[in-house]
Amino acid sequence: MPTLDRQDGVFVLDIGDTENRFHPDWLAAVNALLDEVEKAEGPRALVTAASGKFFSNGLDLEWLFANADRADEYVGGVQALLARVLTLPMVTVAALQGHTFAAGAMLSLAHDFRVMRGDRGFWCLPEAEINIPFTAGMSALIQARLAPRTAHEAMVTARRYGGHDALAAGVVDRTAEEDAVRRTAVELAAAHTAKAGPTVGTIKTRMYARALEALQEKEFTLN
Amino acid sequence: MPTLDRQDGVFVLDIGDTENRFHPDWLAAVNALLDEVEKAEGPRALVTAASGKFFSNGLDLEWLFANADRADEYVGGVQALLARVLTLPMVTVAALQGHTFAAGAMLSLAHDFRVMRGDRGFWCLPEAEINIPFTAGMSALIQARLAPRTAHEAMVTARRYGGHDALAAGVVDRTAEEDAVRRTAVELAAAHTAKAGPTVGTIKTRMYARALEALQEKEFTLN
Amino acid sequence: MPTLDRQDGVFVLDIGDTENRFHPDWLAAVNALLDEVEKAEGPRALVTAASGKFFSNGLDLEWLFANADRADEYVGGVQALLARVLTLPMVTVAALQGHTFAAGAMLSLAHDFRVMRGDRGFWCLPEAEINIPFTAGMSALIQARLAPRTAHEAMVTARRYGGHDALAAGVVDRTAEEDAVRRTAVELAAAHTAKAGPTVGTIKTRMYARALEALQEKEFTLN
Repeated sequence: MPTLDRQDGVFVLDIGDTENRFHPDWLAAVNALLDEVEKAEGPRALVTAASGKFFSNGLDLEWLFANADRADEYVGGVQALLARVLTLPMVTVAALQGHTFAAGAMLSLAHDFRVMRGDRGFWCLPEAEINIPFTAGMSALIQARLAPRTAHEAMVTARRYGGHDALAAGVVDRTAEEDAVRRTAVELAAAHTAKAGPTVGTIKTRMYARALEALQEKEFTLN
Repeated sequence: MPTLDRQDGVFVLDIGDTENRFHPDWLAAVNALLDEVEKAEGPRALVTAASGKFFSNGLDLEWLFANADRADEYVGGVQALLARVLTLPMVTVAALQGHTFAAGAMLSLAHDFRVMRGDRGFWCLPEAEINIPFTAGMSALIQARLAPRTAHEAMVTARRYGGHDALAAGVVDRTAEEDAVRRTAVELAAAHTAKAGPTVGTIKTRMYARALEALQEKEFTLN
Repeated sequence: MPTLDRQDGVFVLDIGDTENRFHPDWLAAVNALLDEVEKAEGPRALVTAASGKFFSNGLDLEWLFANADRADEYVGGVQALLARVLTLPMVTVAALQGHTFAAGAMLSLAHDFRVMRGDRGFWCLPEAEINIPFTAGMSALIQARLAPRTAHEAMVTARRYGGHDALAAGVVDRTAEEDAVRRTAVELAAAHTAKAGPTVGTIKTRMYARALEALQEKEFTLN
């Protein structure tokens, strides 16, 4: 399950060492740890990281199919997390040491910056291949954070971006060797701890007003 | 007049070997052929191509000036075609073997990808020079598909992009030798035939909801 | 105070040789000179330039803190200037010979093109550091003119872009030696004087309808 560590001003949220899918318990745990990060005071920043082969594979489809009657509540909760990270009142960096797929890729886009392992692992929005269209809110988030051409190719063709391709397309901001991904993310975050505070929260909230509105939807047509 | 051919999973819509302006009869013919493409089943993709010196010069201004009383209906029909191609439930590629101007350039932007001849021919939005402002819908389409800086320069200065400049500016995705433009487009489309289906249509429809709404306008102030 | 000069078809608006902050008298003077530029006829374009160490440091915070009761009127006036430059019916170029900060940077983005000194001076949106969030209108302007990733980094981290970094990030269109900045801007503007006229004004107005609407707000929450 997710854990929280602190290295000087940088909180490191480790979201797990499995596929790190967004099970309701995982969502509750991540939100509780983000409460701690938000309640802390003074200069700080957030790195979201994971261990193993995956950063995150996104929605917990197994749980979702077994609990179809709670789909609206569940997707609403996922979108609330995306919106929360997108507007966190401090600088945020995602450390992508492994596969980053679907809603896991969207979670990475909700951060201010992304550092990705260069030699292995893919960043991918596979929705066009697995026949689950993006919700309006997810679509708005992705399109607000990527260049139009990159968003189009990623969303329509489900292209799998390796680290170097992701860097070239502007999906991530840096690549690093496997054992340097988290350290690079922490260094990047550490340079911006002084910016924590309500101003940065307000700046992000105004920038992404339209995506945030779409992410607040409560009912979904998943196909 | 437009014709339709099929190479395995790839439909090739040839829009003509003249200036390929959007005469009402041309619009009707293209729409009828797109009906065939949509009604077909199974894996498929679309390449829109042309022959000769022009891909398309866009609006049939001669017809429009002779039928000014039908301007709203005509422009509405052009915008409906742009919206239809933008949301076609399969991957679409425009093969730009020759000059691609004005609404012809917009038609190219409604496709998922563009392949352009590298050594000759221009892609250009000449509206600022010929004193016909973009409609709100056309503006929204262009701005949804190009990077902000590219859209601005293309729309405000009527810059003529040769193939290599168009590639550098992100207006097109590939360049090719004259005799390889269509083949390259077909190869690109063939790689994505498995994605045909309602999911890709829904993804595009949600991505471009705002442009589609603007393209549905029924009355226009052309200047 | 601001002055206006004309070199053939190119008007050169010199906004001053101090920090060129937007004092109400400065706003009135700039607007009066823009009236002249707009009233002129025939082929023309505008270069906005300055002298000394600063292009502009933006809002006159000293005046604003001494006149807090007029804050809404003042910020509304600044946003009206940004909107006016953004939609001027001719091609506009900002010649950035020195530091370009905060609303000064936004004024530069309201122009069609930017030429920046390459070796010294910074372009910067320091709002995240000085705890003054962007208004919705300013946010919309910046986001309409920059690539998503560039807008995000500039707005959230207050990064100071030197000339070459600004060029690489697409914030400016050209760099030049100190003594060539204004000349390069005039040459660029001179190439587009034939485009002056209502069509270009309409094109820009439709392109930026959403930002213009946000810039028309009359009441502000500055933090």
